[in-house]
Amino acid sequence: MSEIEEAINRMKKVHLIITGPDGSVARSNIDLKSEVNKYIYNIGELIDKARNIVRDVDPSNDMTLLRFTLRKHDIIIAPGKNFRIIIIQETNKDATTEEKS
Amino acid sequence: MSEIEEAINRMKKVHLIITGPDGSVARSNIDLKSEVNKYIYNIGELIDKARNIVRDVDPSNDMTLLRFTLRKHDIIIAPGKNFRIIIIQETNKDATTEEKS
Repeated sequence: MSEIEEAINRMKKVHLIITGPDGSVARSNIDLKSEVNKYIYNIGELIDKARNIVRDVDPSNDMTLLRFTLRKHDIIIAPGKNFRIIIIQETNKDATTEEKS
Repeated sequence: MSEIEEAINRMKKVHLIITGPDGSVARSNIDLKSEVNKYIYNIGELIDKARNIVRDVDPSNDMTLLRFTLRKHDIIIAPGKNFRIIIIQETNKDATTEEKS
């Protein structure tokens, strides 16, 4: 596979989702029936929990970015006041078959 | 302040905590009465939740790294089978006073 084709294929595996604060999807480039979509709703709850933990400890602190590295995906979440930006990138499975600790 | 002093001061602000799977602290270089410590126990619960979400969607997937960017801290968590490594770095407050979205 040429370098250009590889780069294009990598881009295809980047999913962008913009949701409202309630988790409703406002903009997305993914098939909403796909497996990736299953993460979104559950993750919304997780973001709220994480933000609350941070603010409970120090109200002047706040979460600006949350990043999950999974075996199969990289998930980056930017929680805003009125919307959330979620980026899900599929990682190369072959490159992430390192042994578990 | 010289460059070297700055670098040393930055290092002082890096906290390393190793906990058991139950959240008990095994090794740490932080004052356990400090504010930073308050995050640890709450974060443990969050890790479990995040891992469960990932595994519920796809049992062959797993979380290998979790990263929170806060206004005042960067928190990196590497969840292992028998222990968790938590790194908390204090960020320069002056550098993170960007406007909220």
